[in-house]
Formats: sequence, structure tokens, C-alpha cells
Amino acid sequence: MTNKDDLSGKMDASAHILPIRVYYEDTDFSGLVYHATYLRWCERGRTEFVRHLGLNQKELYEQDSLQDQRFFVVRKMQLDYLKPALMDDVIDVVTKVKEIGAATVVLSQEIQRDSEALFRAEVMIVLMSAQGRPVRLSDAMKGAFLPEG
Amino acid sequence: MTNKDDLSGKMDASAHILPIRVYYEDTDFSGLVYHATYLRWCERGRTEFVRHLGLNQKELYEQDSLQDQRFFVVRKMQLDYLKPALMDDVIDVVTKVKEIGAATVVLSQEIQRDSEALFRAEVMIVLMSAQGRPVRLSDAMKGAFLPEG
Amino acid sequence: MTNKDDLSGKMDASAHILPIRVYYEDTDFSGLVYHATYLRWCERGRTEFVRHLGLNQKELYEQDSLQDQRFFVVRKMQLDYLKPALMDDVIDVVTKVKEIGAATVVLSQEIQRDSEALFRAEVMIVLMSAQGRPVRLSDAMKGAFLPEG
Amino acid sequence: MTNKDDLSGKMDASAHILPIRVYYEDTDFSGLVYHATYLRWCERGRTEFVRHLGLNQKELYEQDSLQDQRFFVVRKMQLDYLKPALMDDVIDVVTKVKEIGAATVVLSQEIQRDSEALFRAEVMIVLMSAQGRPVRLSDAMKGAFLPEG
Repeated sequence: MTNKDDLSGKMDASAHILPIRVYYEDTDFSGLVYHATYLRWCERGRTEFVRHLGLNQKELYEQDSLQDQRFFVVRKMQLDYLKPALMDDVIDVVTKVKEIGAATVVLSQEIQRDSEALFRAEVMIVLMSAQGRPVRLSDAMKGAFLPEG
Repeated sequence: MTNKDDLSGKMDASAHILPIRVYYEDTDFSGLVYHATYLRWCERGRTEFVRHLGLNQKELYEQDSLQDQRFFVVRKMQLDYLKPALMDDVIDVVTKVKEIGAATVVLSQEIQRDSEALFRAEVMIVLMSAQGRPVRLSDAMKGAFLPEG
Repeated sequence: MTNKDDLSGKMDASAHILPIRVYYEDTDFSGLVYHATYLRWCERGRTEFVRHLGLNQKELYEQDSLQDQRFFVVRKMQLDYLKPALMDDVIDVVTKVKEIGAATVVLSQEIQRDSEALFRAEVMIVLMSAQGRPVRLSDAMKGAFLPEG
Repeated sequence: MTNKDDLSGKMDASAHILPIRVYYEDTDFSGLVYHATYLRWCERGRTEFVRHLGLNQKELYEQDSLQDQRFFVVRKMQLDYLKPALMDDVIDVVTKVKEIGAATVVLSQEIQRDSEALFRAEVMIVLMSAQGRPVRLSDAMKGAFLPEG
């Protein structure tokens, strides 16, 4: 029925772009979008970005052996709220890799409306084991995150 | 940038269909989708359905005069949870008109995965004034809601 | 620091009562409380009610053996939205047992503001195994749910 | 029925403390608390803190004249996720004033479990007019935010 690819956004030369519509659930009584909603949108952007890289979060998570379970967890965020998004807007979540460490990846994310930045986030994520310990990124994972050039 | 039409779902002969991806935010620690998430999805389906009919909720709401403000409000719901949706699933919200009254519309909504029903809702919505009173649907509105035949 | 009992509401002769404050996150751009928020509040009421009965959901869930894991899942709901709750309101979630079956419990829940009903729900919950099958309620569980008389 | 004061947390010499229970809605399928949930908790802490100062956000917002409407908006946040909160935990939101500017206030917020920090945020909020412009804080407002000393 559904073309699943349409829901996953697209990759251009330097960034992943995921379009999202603003609904009732995203707003609050001030008439603007609720401030924590931007984090939900950025997380959707990261999930689709990671899917484009060929890393499926549910698969990482659902290993047969508990010892092999892995998942990405947010360690740090820096957030700038520039302009409010509004009900019925269509916004784009733009996600880029900024830096790769031993067990961490730093992403730059931006929420845009008609190419204008409404919100900026720098997000450090860590790969964790089921035992709650940071796990070194394999070379294959690092390669997936690295931009082509 | 973004083709906004792709986000609005599509209308077939008898129903509006909106595809949605399941993200972290939609799940809970049981591993399944949180039960209130289905209501957020149904509301997205209704918003896009109403948009397809040419009725924009923000426009109804943002009249110059407070006396002309109108908005749809949920009055009653009957919900059946059949099978759980899971992280990373793509589901369809299928929305049909069931009944039209003087100030109310009853919608049938279904959440499907690969055409299998996971959740069913019957939803009565009411058109309200800014003063909180039910408002009769105009003939134009009733016409918009009525299926072609 | 915190007296945890204060957060769990209280039991009177016939019902469990959980007071909740309305915050930004609960509202939407219409200025009223978002319709799915009432379900989150009812779920908090059910969780505290079940805790008062001596049944801890996390404990049911975190059995050593996967075969012994149990959790309550919502099967059906009937919802009536009577009057809107508003930002900064304090509301009460009032929860009563209505009926007990072999694997199901039907609860009556009401959201009240100053004892006036704003929202009513009839909620059928089912006890499930980790394999996704309904599980008979033990006599001890049934006894816990039954009102004194 | 309800003692509303119990829901508003309490002020000690240097900080406002709001206890909160973790529910299903706060968690995700990883089994931990969803990362955006911490922002909802911090916002509840700020709302109760501001209420303790005698500044009611709904009153600021609902002035008779649109020109007098004011509301606090988040401008910047720095977030550190230290340890995960879990279903059924009781956590404390601890809120302190760090700095006061002409139209801005910087708050330090911490989510603690049994006095151990799970999450830290530095939050810059701005007072805004209905026209979306920053508004100077009155001396009365600054006085309210300033710790006694």
C-alpha cells in the first residue's frame, strides 16, 4: 500500500532531510510548538538517518544474545530556539555528522521551515551495551557515518 | 524543498489513508506502542482528512473576529486494541465518514499494518464556537464530508 | 527527601483518587487540554491504583523467567469528553473496579475538577504473558481488585 | 478534595524541589525513560517554581489587552544525560536561579533520584510579548527570581 521510502526522508550530498507536518499534539496553549517537540522531531531525523546508513535500531537492539544488544543513547545536547514553528507548518529536520569518536558520534541537527532555521541542536550520541556500558564503534559503523568525501 | 502533498496521505474511493512510521516516542517500556499513541495517530489522520476536504483547521480557528472562530472537538470515542504496533513499523491510518448530524460527524478510523487491522476507533467530533457552544455544520461543510455517491 | 506516598493518591471507601496538575505539555494550540492527554492521566491513575492493591507493574514485568512475565494491556475503551480541562487546573483521576472476568478487569475512570466530571472512561484491561496471550487472573489478583464488601 | 499545595513541590534555602513519579508514558521500548521526557519534567519544575515566586503563567498570558500579554519562552538549553531514570522511579526536579539579565533568566535544573543526579540542564528563558518581542523584566520580577541573600 504504502511506499515506505517516502517516509524515510532523503540524503543529499551533505545531509539527511526529513520533512514533518506539525499537528495538534506538537503545540501547547501558547499557540506555538511545545519546546520538547523539537527533540522528538530530531530523534525521528536521527532514526531515519541511521536507517539510511543501513543501521536499523530495532535490529541492533533485538539480538538473540543479550550480550550483543546495542543501542544509541543521547549523552549531551546543546539547543538553540530561534523562531517558533506553528500548527500546520511543514518543517524539515536536517541532520549531519559533525564528529566521530571511539564510542560517540556528534550530530548537527537543524529544524527548518522553507530553508529558514527555527531550531539548532548539537547532539552527542553513544553506543551502549545492554549492560549500560559504552561500546567502541566498529570500523564498519564509523565508515557508515562518515560522509563520502 | 519538500513536497508537502506527500505528507498529507491520499484519498481513495471510500477512505483517506495516511502512512506513519513508528518512532521511539510512540513506544513504552513494555516494548510495544503506548496505548495513547494510537489517538495521536488518529488525530493526524483526521487533520489530513479534513485538509483534503478543503477545511483547514488553523483557518477555521484563526478568524479575525472571535465570534467566527470554529474548531472541531472530540466528544466521544470507542476504541478497540486488536494487535500491538511495534517500533520501526509503518502503519496506515484509514479514515471514513460514518454519519453526519446537525453539529456532529462520526468517523470510523482504523490503524492497519500491511492491511491488517491493529486498532479500531469510532470518533464523534463536534464543531464548536470560541464560546464553547456546538455550532450547526453549514451545508457546504456537510457536502465536503459526504462521500461522492 | 520526597515522601513517595504523597504521589500515589489515596483510596477511599469505593475509589482510588489521584490528583494531577495540568502543565504546558498537556495542552494544545486550541488553548484546551489535548484529547489524548486524558488517556495518559487515566493510565497514571490505573498505575497508582494497581500499586495500592499491592501489584507492582514493573515487578510483574521483570520476572527472572520470561515465561513468568505478565503485564496489563488495554483491550477496549469508551470515552466521553464532557468539559475541557485547562492549563494550571488541578484535576482528580477517580478509578473504580466495575467488573472482573477470567483474564480481564473493567474499570470506571473519571477526570474531575472540584468534583465535577470533565471526562469519563470505561476501560477493559487484560493480563498478558510475554508471549502475547491472555492469562487467567489468580484468585489473589481477583481478591485484590475486589472492593471490600 | 485535593490539597493543591502538595502538587507544587517545595522551596528550600537555595532551590525549588518537585517530586515526580515515572509512568509508562515517560518510557520507550529501550526500557529506559525517553530522552525528551526530561524536558517535560524540567518544564513542570519551572512552572511550579514560577508559581512559588507568585508569577502565574496563565495570568501573565491571559491579560485583557493583547498588548499586555507576556509569556516565558525557552531560548537556549544545555543538557547532560548522566544516568537513566526507570519506570516506577520517583525523581526530584531541582531548580535554581543562576543568572538574571535584562529580559532573560538562566536556571540550573537537575533531575535526581535519591539525591543522585541523573540529568542536568542549564536553561535560558526569555519574557516575550504577544508580538513575539523580548520584554524587559520589571524590578518586581527580578526581585521575585533573586534568592533571598
